[in-house]
Amino acid sequence: MPQKHFNLIKTYNAARAGELYTPHGTVPTPVFMPVGSQATVKTITPREIKDIGFNMVLANTYHLYLRPGIDVIEKMGGLHRFMAWDGAMLTDSGGYQVFSLAPLCKISDNGVTFRSHIDGSEHFLTPELAIHYQESLGADVIMVLDECTAYGDNQEKVRKAMDRTHRWAERCFKAQKRKDRVLYAIVQGGMFPELRKQSAEYLTALDFPGYAIGGLSVGEPKETTFAMVEATSALLPVEKPRYLMGVGSPEDIVESVARGIDIFDSALPTRVARNGALFTGKGRINIRKAAYRQMDDPLDPACDCSTCRTFSAAYLSHLFRSDELLGLRLATVHNLRFIANLMGKIRSSILDGTFSTFRDDFLSNYKTTDEKTRVEQKEKWLRGREKEG
Amino acid sequence: MPQKHFNLIKTYNAARAGELYTPHGTVPTPVFMPVGSQATVKTITPREIKDIGFNMVLANTYHLYLRPGIDVIEKMGGLHRFMAWDGAMLTDSGGYQVFSLAPLCKISDNGVTFRSHIDGSEHFLTPELAIHYQESLGADVIMVLDECTAYGDNQEKVRKAMDRTHRWAERCFKAQKRKDRVLYAIVQGGMFPELRKQSAEYLTALDFPGYAIGGLSVGEPKETTFAMVEATSALLPVEKPRYLMGVGSPEDIVESVARGIDIFDSALPTRVARNGALFTGKGRINIRKAAYRQMDDPLDPACDCSTCRTFSAAYLSHLFRSDELLGLRLATVHNLRFIANLMGKIRSSILDGTFSTFRDDFLSNYKTTDEKTRVEQKEKWLRGREKEG
Repeated sequence: MPQKHFNLIKTYNAARAGELYTPHGTVPTPVFMPVGSQATVKTITPREIKDIGFNMVLANTYHLYLRPGIDVIEKMGGLHRFMAWDGAMLTDSGGYQVFSLAPLCKISDNGVTFRSHIDGSEHFLTPELAIHYQESLGADVIMVLDECTAYGDNQEKVRKAMDRTHRWAERCFKAQKRKDRVLYAIVQGGMFPELRKQSAEYLTALDFPGYAIGGLSVGEPKETTFAMVEATSALLPVEKPRYLMGVGSPEDIVESVARGIDIFDSALPTRVARNGALFTGKGRINIRKAAYRQMDDPLDPACDCSTCRTFSAAYLSHLFRSDELLGLRLATVHNLRFIANLMGKIRSSILDGTFSTFRDDFLSNYKTTDEKTRVEQKEKWLRGREKEG
Repeated sequence: MPQKHFNLIKTYNAARAGELYTPHGTVPTPVFMPVGSQATVKTITPREIKDIGFNMVLANTYHLYLRPGIDVIEKMGGLHRFMAWDGAMLTDSGGYQVFSLAPLCKISDNGVTFRSHIDGSEHFLTPELAIHYQESLGADVIMVLDECTAYGDNQEKVRKAMDRTHRWAERCFKAQKRKDRVLYAIVQGGMFPELRKQSAEYLTALDFPGYAIGGLSVGEPKETTFAMVEATSALLPVEKPRYLMGVGSPEDIVESVARGIDIFDSALPTRVARNGALFTGKGRINIRKAAYRQMDDPLDPACDCSTCRTFSAAYLSHLFRSDELLGLRLATVHNLRFIANLMGKIRSSILDGTFSTFRDDFLSNYKTTDEKTRVEQKEKWLRGREKEG
């Protein structure tokens, strides 16, 4: 990578405002990436993603490898062209999905054998193939193949996975052919601070252009997540971007920015939208509740999204009660615009030195799901995830 | 109605080009109305309906009466405001759905008792209530309550239903309160030319501002449909608009315009789109077929819709194979744009005296579903329609 990939513009305590430079444009950070697993952010067009305020999306190599196939997308001119997205893009390695979605996965130092969750066919993924696939897709930022562990795994198991992740990171580094794309390493180590430290030290010595924190938000209590984020983030080089994988509730984004994170992705805002759970400054509301059936106001009068500027809460409520597809789309637009606005406010408050005030105000107004319900919902989601794709 | 509702501009044999004047704008005819049964044309926004090229939509009183309720929509300022549609709108009386969707419907001269297909609750609909509900919704064009018969019903049964339809039409006429809206009568009479004649004569004597032809496209052979359309259309007053209810395949629209029809509605273009059946100048194609999996071109290179201008057939194919919601939406946009373009070409060819050539060219290129398959599909749809809503 001849050009600089990241520029840190301003810090506020641990929080950071910066810019990512990619072949598909500059991306202000902190940034949230909407998830387009199957080459589409569900229900909305690339044009709308841009209009809502996003410059960068994530796509899943695992899903696209299985369907339509990496070769098909390559023949169609790469993933940007295939899905008609001309902004920045990050792909994951496929590892996380292989470990969590695919049945009968078998791992060795060489790589991982798994079966397709779609048709049961057998496949083999190595660090070298993960890089090859991602370079064929053509994402601007690609990720190393890592071994993921589950919450509750013991230290010995987590250490072994971490060591393998380190060896695979080196192989991914060497396997890179495209010099116009950047590869991020993934710090593992489960919920063990000592392992997180070892992982951060090992990987930063290899001088990747960016670092992700993996293996979090997998069912652990929130204070553990934040403790791990804080400890790991502090060990990463100041001049490189930091990506917290799979985190994306409004309150978690704010808390993680405060701990030094620059990049986020999560299907949560779009997934809960399709369930009728909509973000407002006061917390999530459920549009199916009787209170909204005859509410002539927008669901969030303070919101500037096209849904709230065009339709009443009553209309949205009607669409959800009638199982109308337009409802899923209007809710998706709203939740993504909420996150885009949130990222904008976070960044400007870091730049003008008022992030603490913003954070306190936001968190004191935004009613979060209580911890017990949150953990139950997360577990339910982890169990039922295949259906989501 | 103080102002004129319809202006016949030009005829070409039986085909007609004109204009409808409504409180929500002027509508060039022949016109096709996309169907928004539940106050939404499935998957797309009112803005998109306009951008695709439609100035008039249809909504179903039966569906909206059951959910969210006429009272809710009235409180929200009427149906135009509720669904954020500022173009022209027609509502049906609810009769067709009561007879075809609702279980346990019982009919008397007074009205019809039926149960909700959603929750089984009992309801009563009269001609007066049908008008009251439609006036509350606020559509620009409203329809009389008619008694619908099935294909195969004998002449005596059809005659009785027709006579009742006539009595109900008079009651609807008298029940009208809003002078800023127009009420169309519905000619019935099944597949019996003599009854069609009686019905047309009876209703035209009452001087409605528009006439619909009901009771067709209910499973009969196509030649019967066209024979009935041709015979009935010829009996209707030249200066009033003629609406063929529930017809909307491209070839049927062309053939019916040639027989004097001005107004169409049908859920067919949007329904088949969601099944992956897409209109092209050569006929319908199925986007799920293997041939499209790696087709880098748009599914119809001649099409100017936003789907074809933005995405390849391969991408659409991928969305359908992956059950992605965006696919349903992009397909809907394409099929509706095809129909909008078709209506535009029909109208301009009537205006410039080339409709015969256009009709011959279109029908010789557009490969239609064979009659046996068509009847089977229609019957399957009639049986499974509750699911569609």
